[in-house]
Amino acid sequence: MSWLEELAAELPAERLSNRAADLDAASHDESSLAAVRPAAVAWPLSTEEVSRIVDVAARHRLPLTARGAGSSLEGNPIPLGGGLVVDFSRMTRVIEVRAADLAVRVEPGVVYETLNRSLRPHGLFFPPSPGGSADVATVGGMLANDASGIYSVKYGGTRDSVLAATVVVGDGRTLRLGSDCRKTSSGYHLIGLIVGSEGTLGLVTEVTLRLRGIPAARRQIALVFETERRAADAIAAMMAYGVDLAAVEFLDRRTIAALDRFGGYGLEERPTLFLETHGSESGAEEAARAALEICADHGAREVRLASGQSPWAVRHHATRSIQARHPGAAVARTDLAVPISRLPDVVEESYRRGDEAGLSLYVFGHAGLGILHVLILESPASAERWRAALAAKDAILRFVLGVGGSVSGEHGLGLGNRRYAALEHGGALALMKQIKSVFDPHGILNPGKIWE
Amino acid sequence: MSWLEELAAELPAERLSNRAADLDAASHDESSLAAVRPAAVAWPLSTEEVSRIVDVAARHRLPLTARGAGSSLEGNPIPLGGGLVVDFSRMTRVIEVRAADLAVRVEPGVVYETLNRSLRPHGLFFPPSPGGSADVATVGGMLANDASGIYSVKYGGTRDSVLAATVVVGDGRTLRLGSDCRKTSSGYHLIGLIVGSEGTLGLVTEVTLRLRGIPAARRQIALVFETERRAADAIAAMMAYGVDLAAVEFLDRRTIAALDRFGGYGLEERPTLFLETHGSESGAEEAARAALEICADHGAREVRLASGQSPWAVRHHATRSIQARHPGAAVARTDLAVPISRLPDVVEESYRRGDEAGLSLYVFGHAGLGILHVLILESPASAERWRAALAAKDAILRFVLGVGGSVSGEHGLGLGNRRYAALEHGGALALMKQIKSVFDPHGILNPGKIWE
Repeated sequence: MSWLEELAAELPAERLSNRAADLDAASHDESSLAAVRPAAVAWPLSTEEVSRIVDVAARHRLPLTARGAGSSLEGNPIPLGGGLVVDFSRMTRVIEVRAADLAVRVEPGVVYETLNRSLRPHGLFFPPSPGGSADVATVGGMLANDASGIYSVKYGGTRDSVLAATVVVGDGRTLRLGSDCRKTSSGYHLIGLIVGSEGTLGLVTEVTLRLRGIPAARRQIALVFETERRAADAIAAMMAYGVDLAAVEFLDRRTIAALDRFGGYGLEERPTLFLETHGSESGAEEAARAALEICADHGAREVRLASGQSPWAVRHHATRSIQARHPGAAVARTDLAVPISRLPDVVEESYRRGDEAGLSLYVFGHAGLGILHVLILESPASAERWRAALAAKDAILRFVLGVGGSVSGEHGLGLGNRRYAALEHGGALALMKQIKSVFDPHGILNPGKIWE
Repeated sequence: MSWLEELAAELPAERLSNRAADLDAASHDESSLAAVRPAAVAWPLSTEEVSRIVDVAARHRLPLTARGAGSSLEGNPIPLGGGLVVDFSRMTRVIEVRAADLAVRVEPGVVYETLNRSLRPHGLFFPPSPGGSADVATVGGMLANDASGIYSVKYGGTRDSVLAATVVVGDGRTLRLGSDCRKTSSGYHLIGLIVGSEGTLGLVTEVTLRLRGIPAARRQIALVFETERRAADAIAAMMAYGVDLAAVEFLDRRTIAALDRFGGYGLEERPTLFLETHGSESGAEEAARAALEICADHGAREVRLASGQSPWAVRHHATRSIQARHPGAAVARTDLAVPISRLPDVVEESYRRGDEAGLSLYVFGHAGLGILHVLILESPASAERWRAALAAKDAILRFVLGVGGSVSGEHGLGLGNRRYAALEHGGALALMKQIKSVFDPHGILNPGKIWE
């Protein structure tokens, strides 16, 4: 029997497809990377079904690519090897809320915001809050890429919230990794290896997430600075003083200009920080006051947004507003991360590279985590201009690696960044490849990702 | 040349020894497990020296056991295979404090309290605070066992503070794992695999730690409850309400009685919680008020310690005061962890098992993390009584595994708990063994630990 016939014997017709529309839908993500059609798409509903799918794939050496919402930005779920896309979008159950343990068991297809809506009655939430995609990103996709977001400054990335998972590895074995305990020192931390592995080590079919109590109060602040450097210094100072910040987002003056033209938010064309504090009424208020004081010492001034606007509603439109200024342009994007102290150097280097080549370049990101998204917009119509954009991105990423940074803060290496894996990880890359073959002896799980 | 001759060519005489006194000192830890003498002890001073030592050992298939302070409690650094103990106690430099990045680069032999003293002028600290051993535990030993402590409730365990490390793996290769960035999604999380691997995957020669700002204010509270169950319910409630607690320590009425007889602290013989909050003056005060309110709802009453006593000074003597009540007795100890909601069940099960066998049994621990240390004191002189103590410990640990717990919250599996590795990790244990052989192809790194 062919693998497709074997799968057809395992799954009902409505959950296994090789129809063109389904193959197209599974062929791309939100990046501008070239789409690749799989041979088929399966929508499992249980760990058992996933295990049977992997078993069939292992026998046929069939490439398997797990897919969540497809909202990734580095081609992570593009099925390079063709084969089968395992789409988790129908495994969306919130299995068990264990409020007393501040934990929840979920299926990987549940969408971030949907999960948090279901947790609200318990006074709990799953914090990362992926800025642009909270309404679509699935828990499985967030786990695969160790997604972070605006609240990761206080609560950490997805990694810091994953306690345990049920994982089907590349030979079809189903394993329970991690622990329901908040803290354990028992055995190797395999669950931490699965988080961020981009579907190359196993297919996650159930996740136990650590939750936090919804803060009683929040304060949101928008601040403008004279220079990017002073903004970055203010961030480091607030952290060194132990100011309890939930979110620290940076937008450069260019992004602010784009946003203001896009939405008329009444912003000033200066390097801007959006801050949020969480706590009790007075706790959140006091943390906000402490932040304001330190930022004022760094020459910052508080600005009020146009009435009724939340900084996050504004931030949410950053990419869209930049694209609106450059109709028909494509985006060359970085997801770089650096130690906080190097943020200003990276902003300056990015401007320098952009100006040299006369490029339209914007910088914003989760500066509290050291993550900056540099967006370069150029028309792909001009091969020369587009090459210049890619060359500038490459130069910026090499500069970042030179100052101890990373080419991916939160989107993963996928396809878009895999060429830098050897440069960033050096000798450790050989170990990663050996570990890959421990979990995936036949090399069928999302082949071609993370490294070249 | 013999391996000892080869090492003698690499290290000066004063840093390589096979003198009886040195071999004895390296043969045991703070557990009551049988000592094993190594054949020699080396005290390297640099990554290069460690790499050369591992290279010699790899060629001679010589067992290597890394050693820090030897304050572990599960036999983790006992050199089962004899061979060479690599003692890091002379690699104690604080290499670089990067205050703006809230990070520090250190050598693994630096002692926890010594490191924090050197960070104080920068207003920063490394949080875990291992209760009983902060004055001796080394950063390397803490990393090897993912040590936690009283402040891990707020700041996490050692794992959550390790950004990067230089590691010499079992074939002598020196690798840089992790990243100086606060957050990255680039490649597999190998650094998380090294943390908690008990020296079985590599020898750590340099560590970059994430630091936190020293809180401006602290509040310490001691509370007594009617029952263990109400105390545990109060802990879960405080967390669900998002009360920002830095420390949550539980001491059962028996431990309290022992402490009071030992130090006359004016405690009440009831289940007791010691809490600490961190923040600004008003922030710490308000968190403390919130905690008191919730605990009062659970029938708790605040108690004052004898003047000038810090709860932690009292807590520090828990084990000693229990031992003082049982002269000549040996300690059978658990380091178990469970989901917070199961804390009362474990306390009750422990009492039941202890009473059945007429054992002297005490319970205390980092309850905010779900970690409980059950101490059973019996005279080893009576083989029958000691067998009963070990049988009770075994029954308690099997109960813990049955409710989704772990046999080790913070001490590691070492030798004392390795018999439970298969029971706790099931099929995942086979993957751990495969990963071990990726990092340590010759099986020379701390052989015989973590699993049987």
